[in-house]
Amino acid sequence: MHQASLLANEITEAIRAVTGSSDCALHEPSFQGKEWTYVRECLDSTFVSSVGAFVDRFESDLANYTGAKHAIAVSNGTAALHVSLLLAGVQTGDEVLVPALTFVATANAVRYCQASPHFVDSEARTLGVDAVRLDAYLGEISTQREGQCVNLTTGQVIRALIVMHVFGHPCELDALMKVADKHHIALVEDAAEALGSWYGQRHVGTFGLLGALSFNGNKIITTGGGGAILTNDTALAKRAKHLTTTAKLPHRWAYEHDEVGFNYRMPNLNAALGCAQLEMMQIFLSQKRALHVRYAAQFQNIQGVRLVSEPLGCTSNYWLQALQLEQAQADNRDHLLDALNAAGIAARPVWKLMHQLKQFEVCPRMDLRQAQALEQQLINIPSSASLGALESVDDLP
Amino acid sequence: MHQASLLANEITEAIRAVTGSSDCALHEPSFQGKEWTYVRECLDSTFVSSVGAFVDRFESDLANYTGAKHAIAVSNGTAALHVSLLLAGVQTGDEVLVPALTFVATANAVRYCQASPHFVDSEARTLGVDAVRLDAYLGEISTQREGQCVNLTTGQVIRALIVMHVFGHPCELDALMKVADKHHIALVEDAAEALGSWYGQRHVGTFGLLGALSFNGNKIITTGGGGAILTNDTALAKRAKHLTTTAKLPHRWAYEHDEVGFNYRMPNLNAALGCAQLEMMQIFLSQKRALHVRYAAQFQNIQGVRLVSEPLGCTSNYWLQALQLEQAQADNRDHLLDALNAAGIAARPVWKLMHQLKQFEVCPRMDLRQAQALEQQLINIPSSASLGALESVDDLP
Repeated sequence: MHQASLLANEITEAIRAVTGSSDCALHEPSFQGKEWTYVRECLDSTFVSSVGAFVDRFESDLANYTGAKHAIAVSNGTAALHVSLLLAGVQTGDEVLVPALTFVATANAVRYCQASPHFVDSEARTLGVDAVRLDAYLGEISTQREGQCVNLTTGQVIRALIVMHVFGHPCELDALMKVADKHHIALVEDAAEALGSWYGQRHVGTFGLLGALSFNGNKIITTGGGGAILTNDTALAKRAKHLTTTAKLPHRWAYEHDEVGFNYRMPNLNAALGCAQLEMMQIFLSQKRALHVRYAAQFQNIQGVRLVSEPLGCTSNYWLQALQLEQAQADNRDHLLDALNAAGIAARPVWKLMHQLKQFEVCPRMDLRQAQALEQQLINIPSSASLGALESVDDLP
Repeated sequence: MHQASLLANEITEAIRAVTGSSDCALHEPSFQGKEWTYVRECLDSTFVSSVGAFVDRFESDLANYTGAKHAIAVSNGTAALHVSLLLAGVQTGDEVLVPALTFVATANAVRYCQASPHFVDSEARTLGVDAVRLDAYLGEISTQREGQCVNLTTGQVIRALIVMHVFGHPCELDALMKVADKHHIALVEDAAEALGSWYGQRHVGTFGLLGALSFNGNKIITTGGGGAILTNDTALAKRAKHLTTTAKLPHRWAYEHDEVGFNYRMPNLNAALGCAQLEMMQIFLSQKRALHVRYAAQFQNIQGVRLVSEPLGCTSNYWLQALQLEQAQADNRDHLLDALNAAGIAARPVWKLMHQLKQFEVCPRMDLRQAQALEQQLINIPSSASLGALESVDDLP
């Protein structure tokens, strides 16, 4: 415990050197652009609800920014995942491969489709799904029947694979797309944390059949609550809009709906905020990268912990800064979390692994040794973009 | 068709006498209070998302206004209905009694619980579920087994009854509560349209085990998108908050969730708008009542059509003004709708009956003769509160 306290002091000092002495939240939004102008314009128009010019503009701006052919604004990232899975063909009784190391919404969305999450392991390099081990695992436990991947043990179809870009760091998309293709599994990207992250030259969320974004209050940009579905498939985009707007058929005055749809619309009021926030992306990204550089300078000489950096060949949005404890320090995680939070520095572990939540205990899973190791090693530290703007930093490397 | 055209002209003139000559929407929100102030305050606080003072205040204000012991703000009325049904115990394979004459969200919410809507008829007086005929119907088709109501034909448990307050007019709650009690069926109120409506001296949405409100852009007050669950049961209120906030367990830093929850939170930004709108309720209610009085004066001498009024002993919010065509005129409904809309007066029929939508065609249902008659007879006409403020009117009767 003595060693743990020493490390806690070193980490606290390193963070304080970057953030200053004030209490520090994990992630706060920043409204320095046209947020009020657009929100007021929206109020003045009285079009605050599910139809309005800001929704159309936000969708168009998101498509332009990400390079996706289509973006459909919805009420939150969970709704985006739910509808993405439905459109990927997930049906009652199916299995969907989900990283054990993710936020609970990823697994919940599978359950909303009456399907079962099937948990897979992550790799330390990207924090995302381990493509090599997943391929080997599917080779052992599944077979192809009529062009579908069938779990030999459960007899259920493995319909989709959700990959998740943890803390904004892109996972190994090339390899994961190949695994999904080889096993005839649809790829859906949970890019909730990854607006502004690129795998090579291409924005994440545009590699899978569909991708889900989130604009919750703690994300790189916020709409209060909100999300979006990205897709390059025009037919799926139309279906996404239809399903998220109660499946109402267009008509001058009649109310007819042709399937069980959802009320997953993003209100125009929230889209107005989103339009202003999206205009600030380049500033947020450069501030977050500057913050990373400053943390990196502080942590380079601290033994027992390293700052998590973007995978080679990728550009991360550095949504959440993370420390990774050396294996020998992993038992000290909770002590460090207590010490940091007691010092007024918001810090948190990564999510409890999905297969350890009682509602998902019975779900199928592969050996999860790496996710289990990472869960004990990862600590998020204050990551607001504004912290990267506290004082001038040298040009980025 | 000649007679229909004459009637269309009479109705157009009657509406124009009230609304003036400008084009007229069906229902527009009005922001004449502190909407800007509160929304600006919310942006300035940076707490725009799922935690914030305006959410707490909106919930408290709603509870005070309605007299409900608890109000839980959620993302929309559909979400409120979904969670209300889950908390009423609706399970996979159950049946839920739902009026055929309702908006599609009522029936969709049942499907989200993997249950089946079972459609019941309405009465002309209140436009709500007909308690007398429902009691007789349940006597014929169901039996009690171990304290549960079981459908003799399907063998499924009839778990809940949703009643809906159409256009804001309270349905016959005393009689419906008795029917639900007698048959051991949980009562849930779809009060999406009925904020500001009282059955006797008690606000609707507080009679059932749970009640659902909506604050969509077309409702009497709006939060952009939003809804709320009302209940007098403290344990259910806690469960509602838990289920709608991803079922996260409270902890300083850990992320643990103990069941499959939902991301149904109302963002603080939307709650800020709601707080300001709720302060305007008395003005909206008096304007809507004034509009009704003015329409009533215009329509009293037009043959073939009557203006729908609140049921005796109830106080309606008059959310949507409605005309009811005499049976002999019912075939002219679509002609009238075309003529009114062509004249720049937004008018629409009531919703297509639920059992006529293809996704609900196979659901069980009772004889729906009254709902079918009403569907052909009802036309909504411009109903914005601001129309009631166009010029001074005499004191209300």
